[in-house]
Amino acid sequence: MGVVTSPKQDRSRVTRQRLLEAAVSCLAERGWSGSTVSVVAERAGVSRGAAQHHFPTREDLFTAAVEYVAEERSTALRQLFPEGGADRREVVTALVDLFTGPLFRAALQLWVAAANEEQLGTRVAELEARVGRETHRIAVEMLAVDESRPGARETVQGFLDMARGLGLAHLLTDDTGRRARVVAEWARILDGALG
Amino acid sequence: MGVVTSPKQDRSRVTRQRLLEAAVSCLAERGWSGSTVSVVAERAGVSRGAAQHHFPTREDLFTAAVEYVAEERSTALRQLFPEGGADRREVVTALVDLFTGPLFRAALQLWVAAANEEQLGTRVAELEARVGRETHRIAVEMLAVDESRPGARETVQGFLDMARGLGLAHLLTDDTGRRARVVAEWARILDGALG
Repeated sequence: MGVVTSPKQDRSRVTRQRLLEAAVSCLAERGWSGSTVSVVAERAGVSRGAAQHHFPTREDLFTAAVEYVAEERSTALRQLFPEGGADRREVVTALVDLFTGPLFRAALQLWVAAANEEQLGTRVAELEARVGRETHRIAVEMLAVDESRPGARETVQGFLDMARGLGLAHLLTDDTGRRARVVAEWARILDGALG
Repeated sequence: MGVVTSPKQDRSRVTRQRLLEAAVSCLAERGWSGSTVSVVAERAGVSRGAAQHHFPTREDLFTAAVEYVAEERSTALRQLFPEGGADRREVVTALVDLFTGPLFRAALQLWVAAANEEQLGTRVAELEARVGRETHRIAVEMLAVDESRPGARETVQGFLDMARGLGLAHLLTDDTGRRARVVAEWARILDGALG
């Protein structure tokens, strides 16, 4: 009976999700300095009191939001290639796509704000470590990498660093054309390196 | 006689340099929201009026600062390998080092702030394009790359994207150990890819 939820619990879950999604788009569009619990509550159509019931502090709301959306994206990515054995070039492109779009923009805003705020810094460093480990796990699985092979782990890590750098390059200008050429070339090189 | 400068011109140049260096360290430590012309003038030991004589707006000061320090770093990098024919792994490490440290931290703060401020966005996108082209030129030269070879250009671009991603990974936590392992592996892969 534990999994049956009451209508009240359902409403609470829906409210929470709306707050988290509003928080990520707010962070992506307005940066950390423009992102407060009040602004997000209004955007989500939720009272400030209800928002604070779910997330007592600003730090709680925004770190939870980035983590929630990262998990949603990971799930979507796994569903995109459910069978394994996908073409590595397609997988490389899908992984790079994780680092463009609103989630990465939001995470970057939080990350950079955290560099100048000690309390936020600790929270965001922990969050990034968790999200980073999960992304690494997905990449290893989807690229069918044998991590026992010397250098394989670092090869995947470096590729994900490249994906992060490509996300950064897309922040101010539309980098789609250049990125497609870089990804095509490096998918080939990566395929060779992974054996 | 055009290159002879008066003591007054010398003082002006020194003041300008002090402002630019103070602006970069301010941006790296306090972010865009904590970085104003007044704060930088005080840090540089220069009057606010003198600072505004050199840089009429906040945008002028901080974009000039990031460009100036990027040029200084490029010059230092060229001097590190003046003869060409350097070991590619050493060059790769030196290039990645461009993306850790205060200059990259400052550039990142400016970059991310620019994503949410239209006027700053245009200025910073232009600045990043110039600095990016110069970094690419240095990388091609120091890695002794034949850019006429298909894919060579994209190979270097992807490597610089990786360096940028490694810089981002170093923002909140000391990533030195992991970075060294990734760079060692990717220097090998890059060397093979460049032929």
